Amino acid sequence: MKRVAIISYGMTKVDKHWDKSLRRLFGEAALMAMNKVNIPKIDAIIVSNMCASDLSDQNNIGTIVADELGLTPITAYRVEAACGSGGAALLTGFSLVSSGMFEVVMVGGVEKLTDNIGKMATFSLGKAADAEYELFYGATFASLNALLMNRYMHVYGTPREAFADFAVLMHRNGSKNPYAQLPFEINREIALNSEFIADPIRLYDCAPIGDGAAVVILCPLEVASKYSDSFVEIMGIAGASDTINLGSRDDLLSLRATITAANNAYKMARITPADVDIVEIHDTFTITAAISLEDLGFCERGKFDKLLNEGAFEPGGIVAVNPSGGLKSRGHPVGATGVYQAAEITMQLLEEAGKMQVPNSEIGLTHNMGGVGSNVYVSIMRRAR
Amino acid sequence: MKRVAIISYGMTKVDKHWDKSLRRLFGEAALMAMNKVNIPKIDAIIVSNMCASDLSDQNNIGTIVADELGLTPITAYRVEAACGSGGAALLTGFSLVSSGMFEVVMVGGVEKLTDNIGKMATFSLGKAADAEYELFYGATFASLNALLMNRYMHVYGTPREAFADFAVLMHRNGSKNPYAQLPFEINREIALNSEFIADPIRLYDCAPIGDGAAVVILCPLEVASKYSDSFVEIMGIAGASDTINLGSRDDLLSLRATITAANNAYKMARITPADVDIVEIHDTFTITAAISLEDLGFCERGKFDKLLNEGAFEPGGIVAVNPSGGLKSRGHPVGATGVYQAAEITMQLLEEAGKMQVPNSEIGLTHNMGGVGSNVYVSIMRRAR
Repeated sequence: MKRVAIISYGMTKVDKHWDKSLRRLFGEAALMAMNKVNIPKIDAIIVSNMCASDLSDQNNIGTIVADELGLTPITAYRVEAACGSGGAALLTGFSLVSSGMFEVVMVGGVEKLTDNIGKMATFSLGKAADAEYELFYGATFASLNALLMNRYMHVYGTPREAFADFAVLMHRNGSKNPYAQLPFEINREIALNSEFIADPIRLYDCAPIGDGAAVVILCPLEVASKYSDSFVEIMGIAGASDTINLGSRDDLLSLRATITAANNAYKMARITPADVDIVEIHDTFTITAAISLEDLGFCERGKFDKLLNEGAFEPGGIVAVNPSGGLKSRGHPVGATGVYQAAEITMQLLEEAGKMQVPNSEIGLTHNMGGVGSNVYVSIMRRAR
Repeated sequence: MKRVAIISYGMTKVDKHWDKSLRRLFGEAALMAMNKVNIPKIDAIIVSNMCASDLSDQNNIGTIVADELGLTPITAYRVEAACGSGGAALLTGFSLVSSGMFEVVMVGGVEKLTDNIGKMATFSLGKAADAEYELFYGATFASLNALLMNRYMHVYGTPREAFADFAVLMHRNGSKNPYAQLPFEINREIALNSEFIADPIRLYDCAPIGDGAAVVILCPLEVASKYSDSFVEIMGIAGASDTINLGSRDDLLSLRATITAANNAYKMARITPADVDIVEIHDTFTITAAISLEDLGFCERGKFDKLLNEGAFEPGGIVAVNPSGGLKSRGHPVGATGVYQAAEITMQLLEEAGKMQVPNSEIGLTHNMGGVGSNVYVSIMRRAR
C-alpha cells in the first residue's frame, strides 16, 4: 500500500455560475490545479457530483470532463454518495494511487444547483434521503435536521443562541475567503431573527445552495517531490455508512457514521483528535456542526455551546474549525463540497491561505457527510514538504 | 499491488420487476452471492447504477443497499459511468482490494428502468450522451448508433443480413440462460422484418430495456481459498474514455476507448486476444458487437460477417461470444450490465453455467461500454482454483 500525497489543488468561487456550464466550471478548477505544478500527465480522473442528472440532464460526467480537458482516452468516471460524494471520490482516488494502478490521479467535484433553483434543486437534494420512507412523506433535509436540533436543545438544555453564534463565527471566517459564496459578516441578532425554514432551524442555520468545482491532484508520496516543491500526505482516510432513514437510528444526537469513519481514519493516521490543528467539517446546518464536533472527538457531548463561547473552535483554541467559512459561508455545492474541504486543508497546511491562514497548522482533517449522517468520509492530512 | 480474486457471484433474472424496489432487487442478487460462500464479513460495497435518480427518485444508493443488507456502518458508495458503470465499479472494487484498504468487497450493479418505461427511460438513458451538443438536438442512442451502422455497411459492403444473423445467435444463446430477459429463439426473417427504430437499426438490433441486479464478491487472491473452494483471478482490468460526442471523432468504425482499455488489460494480464476462450461484450446494438469484436482483436476490420458465418463466435470457434445472450437477449439493465458480465464470466470459468456452459474455458473477458464508446471497461479473468 503506497503512501499518497496531494500535490496540488484548485477551486472556483462558490456562486451562481449561470454563465458557465458544468464542464467549464470543472475545467476552471482543474486548470488552476494543473498550472500550479509541473505535471506532464494525468492518468485518471474521479469526479464527484450528485445532481447533474436532474439539473443539467447529464450523466457520464467522467467522460465529459476528460473530454473538456483534452485528456481522453484516460480512465474517468463519477462517484456519488449524495453530499458525501467528494469524500467518496477522494477515497477512490487514494485507492487508485495507493494500489499502484495509476500514478497521477485528479479527484474533482463539480455541482451546478442554481440553474434550477427552488423546488427542483430542493427535490433533487432530497434524493439523498430515503425516497420510499422519508421523501415520499414530504420530508426535506431542513425538516429532518430540525428534529435533531430540537432534540439536542431538549436533552442538553443548550440555548438557541449557541447555534446563532456558530453561524456568526462561520461568516466571520468566510468573510476572509475569496472563494466563499457568502463572504460577509453577520451578528447574533441577524441570525436569530432570520426567517424560519423548519422550526427551530432558521435561514442562517442553513448552508446556501450554490455552484462550484474543486480539484485536488494525488500521486504516490515517494514521487511527489518530482512534481511539486510543496505537498501534503494523506495519513488516514475512511468512509462509513448508517441507516438511510432517521427512524431506524438508536440515537439522534450522535452520528454513528462519523464516529466509525473518524476512528478508522485516526487509527490509520496513528493520531488522536488532540493532534489535529485544523478541520473542515460538514456544517450543512448549525446543529450538524455541534454533533459532528462531538462525534469527531473535539468536544464533550452537550458542551458545544460552552466550548464555542470559550473560543475553542478558533485559531489558538482546541481546533480551528472551518477557516474557509464552512458550508454555512463558503457554500455547499453538494457533490463538490468534500473536495473543497480537501483543497482548503491542503492550502492551509501549505500556508497559502492568505487572510484565512491559521498559523502553525501541521495536521488537518476533513469531515464530509451524505444525508443526515447516512454516509461520512473523514481524511487526515499532514504537511509533508 | 495485491492480486485479486472473484470468489462469488449472484444475479436476478433481467425482467420487468414491478413488484420489487431497487434495494430489494439488489438484495436478492447480494444474498445469492453471499450464500454461495463462507464469508463472515463484507468490508465495503461499491454499487453501480445510472438512472435511479431519474426513475426512482433515489441517490445515495450505496447507503441504501448497505442498510437493506444490515451491513452498516461499512463503507458504501455509488459509481457511475453511464452504461459502463458496472465496469467502473469493478475497477474500483479491484483497486480497493488491491491496495489493501479492504479485504472483502462487494461490487454490485442495480437498475430499475421499467417502472417509468417509454419516454422517461429513453430520455434518462440519453443523459449518457452529450446533453448540450447531442441530446439537445434530439439525438437518441439508437439514432447515434444508426450513423455507425450505415457507415459500416457503406465502407465494408457488409450485407444487412449479417446484423440480423448476430441477433439470431444472441437469442439462441440467451434461450439457454435462466436469467435472460428475452430467452427465446428468433430467425433471420423475424429480425429483418422487425420495426424500424432508427434506419437501418430495427427492433431486433437493439438491447431491450429491463430491470436487474448482479453482484460479485472480491478479495485478495492469497486468501480466496479461505472463503471458497472455487474462484477466479482478475488478471487484467482497465478503463478508457473517448470524446463524448461522435462529431469529434476521427473514425466512426473503431472505438478508441475499446482499443485503449483492451490493450491495457491484455498488457496487465500478459496475454493476447488469441488466449481468450470466452467473452461477454457490450452489444447494445448489433453494430456495436461488430465494431467491438474488431477493436478487441478477435476479428479483422470489416470481416465481421465472414467470421460470423464461419461460426467463429460460437464455442469451438475463435472465441465464444456472449454465451449469456448478451445485451440483446439477456438484457441490459444499464448500470448493472458490467457486473452481469463479470458474474457470467465467473460462472463460466467455474463451470457452473448449466445449459449455457462453454466447455474448457480457461480465460474470459468482459467488455462494458458507456455512451457510444465514450467510456469502456475491459476485464480479463482466469480460472484459479
